[in-house]
Parts: sequence; structure tokens; C-alpha cells
Amino acid sequence: MNAPPIQRLVTELARLPGIGNRTAQRLAFHILRVDAEEANALADAIREVKERIGLCEVCFNLADGPRCRICLDERRDCGLICVVEEPGDVVPIERTHEFPGRYHVLGGALSPIDGVDPDDLKIAQLYARVLDGDTREVVLATNPTTTGEATALHIAEGLRERAPGVTVTRLASGLPVGSDLEYADEVTLGRAFAGRRAV
Amino acid sequence: MNAPPIQRLVTELARLPGIGNRTAQRLAFHILRVDAEEANALADAIREVKERIGLCEVCFNLADGPRCRICLDERRDCGLICVVEEPGDVVPIERTHEFPGRYHVLGGALSPIDGVDPDDLKIAQLYARVLDGDTREVVLATNPTTTGEATALHIAEGLRERAPGVTVTRLASGLPVGSDLEYADEVTLGRAFAGRRAV
Repeated sequence: MNAPPIQRLVTELARLPGIGNRTAQRLAFHILRVDAEEANALADAIREVKERIGLCEVCFNLADGPRCRICLDERRDCGLICVVEEPGDVVPIERTHEFPGRYHVLGGALSPIDGVDPDDLKIAQLYARVLDGDTREVVLATNPTTTGEATALHIAEGLRERAPGVTVTRLASGLPVGSDLEYADEVTLGRAFAGRRAV
Repeated sequence: MNAPPIQRLVTELARLPGIGNRTAQRLAFHILRVDAEEANALADAIREVKERIGLCEVCFNLADGPRCRICLDERRDCGLICVVEEPGDVVPIERTHEFPGRYHVLGGALSPIDGVDPDDLKIAQLYARVLDGDTREVVLATNPTTTGEATALHIAEGLRERAPGVTVTRLASGLPVGSDLEYADEVTLGRAFAGRRAV
């Protein structure tokens, strides 16, 4: 129904996560409506990000040079490493302003069903990094999902063998702030009980 | 917090309608994750659409040549013109497969507050088209909003003066199919009563 160039744009937009066909259509018509400068700025930003962004050689976070801005920041505590699954997980942690250390991005989570083995993730590089530097603590901040938990367990065991002096911690599970007990699922509520603290 | 190329992409994505900062962030990380080919296909589609798509010289719908596919389609009834506000409005009407005629895209709706006068829309071109050809009916399919209604009224009066032989109709207002009477707003319900039909 659309002219081929429009249909091509709709198809490409619909490949983005959470963008269905209707939304893609709406976005395409928006792009058609705005001036060429604004539309091309988006096209250029997509090209530029693919050309200029790679992975940090230390932590495998996204970086516009050999090292990411966090690894380059002298004020960040080298003795504290937070392990996350994806580069996108760094952003919400940084937003809390609670974490003064550095990161290690695994590039996914262990999932034998999907064929993701320890060798597919940056786990060996984490071990090397921990043994090489003077790491005091590794915070396992993989997702509280089956694959994330399995990954955390795997790494915790690996670190216990290789670097027994290093403290290994996991992010607390419990009730989200502002949530309602009535609507909490039983696993989360169970975790909240198990992790209860003296006030 | 993001490297400049990533932040630039997030900013550009967040300019799209209905895409907030969080979603833009998520889309940017998706684009970073997929291979360069897929990302560049999107960038190219955006550029191409701005280069190759213009307005149809007859109906001002989007077209990849001087005339749009509907105006080029000999099977479409020339005597029946459906007037819509934006090119995006053609798509849902085409999807109904109920309309055998042609379109006229105004490029917006009359809105004195926003400085949109009759001269800013393709209204004069509609009159010329109606007077020039053998138009039997003009269906006013502007949105059922204040500005859309005002635009429909303005055009209806203009056509009555200029082409008194041409039937001018307006899309029916009423209850959406599958909706619940209990949740209908009073204006819509009022319209549904006013437009009630014998069964």
C-alpha cells in the first residue's frame, strides 16, 4: 500500500524492539513530515554509533576509544568490580550514584538452551582481571532471572576457586520501593523475607 | 554518562513521537547490539525516504514519483474524492477496502491559534480539482476533533458556493465497534443518537 521506500523504512523501524507495525508506520510518517536535516541527523547518528563505538578493552562496556570513560576515570575505585550482563545495565546503576567502582560487562548470561556457554561471555577475562589487579570485591549484578542467577552462581564458584581472598556479593532481591505487598509475587516476597534486616 | 556518539543517537531517537528518553536509550543499545548491516539498513531507509518521497502533484499524498500510486491507478473512481488531513490518514482508510475513490491530502487542519489558515492547506487545489473534473461526491474525512470539524465545515461551505452540484458528505461519528456503552463519552454517545439509523 505504501511506496517502496516508505515500506522499506516501516519494515526497518518495525525490527526495533517494542516497535510494532503500527508504531513503525507512525514513526515513518513522522520522519517524512520533518525536514530533511532532522531526519538525516538520525540517520547519521545511527551510522556514527556503529562506526565509532566499540568495546572497552578492560571492561567490555561500550566505548568511543580503546577504553570506556569509567575505566579512564582515575577517581573510580579499582578494587571494586560490578559484573553486569549487558552494556545497557551500566546506565541504571550509574544513575543511582551509589556505585564508586568499575564494571565488567559479560555480554550476556549463561543459557545452555540458547547455546551460550562460559566461553561465549567475558568470564575468563573477568578472572584474569581479578587475579591481575588488587580487587577487594566483585558485585554480581546479573539480572534476577534464571539465566542471570545461573551466571552469578557460576562466576561466584569460579572466583572462590581462583581468588579466595576476594569478597563476592550479589545485589539484594526484595520488594521494589513504592510497590504494593498485595501485588508482590511469591518468589520476590520470599526473597524479601529471606533477606530481612534489623531496623 | 554515555559516550557522545551514543548520546547523540539517544537524543535523535527521543525526538521521535512517543519515544521517551528511556525508550530511546533502549533502542540505541539495540542498534549498538545488532550488526552494522542491519543498523545501516535503517539509516539508509531514512535517507532514501527523504530523498525519494515527495508529494503527489494531484492529491498531495506521499509519492515516489510525480503522482502517487492511487492517482495512477485507473481503476480508482475519479468522481469520488476523500479529503483527509495527513498522508498517514490514507493508510487506515485503504485498510478498510471500503473506499473505491481517490484522495486529497490537505496537509493539516485549520487552526487559527497555531496560525494555520486556509492558504496553508491544499484547499484551493481541492476546489480547482473538483471544478475541473467530473467529481460527484467529496467525502470529508478530517479528524473528528475541533480543528478537523472546523476544516470540514469550511470546505463544505466553499464547495457549496463553488460546486453546488457536488454531494459533500462527512464520515459518520458514533460508537466505535467493539466498544462499551458504559465507557462512551457523552459527545460520542450524543453523536451516535443523532446519527441513529433504522434497522
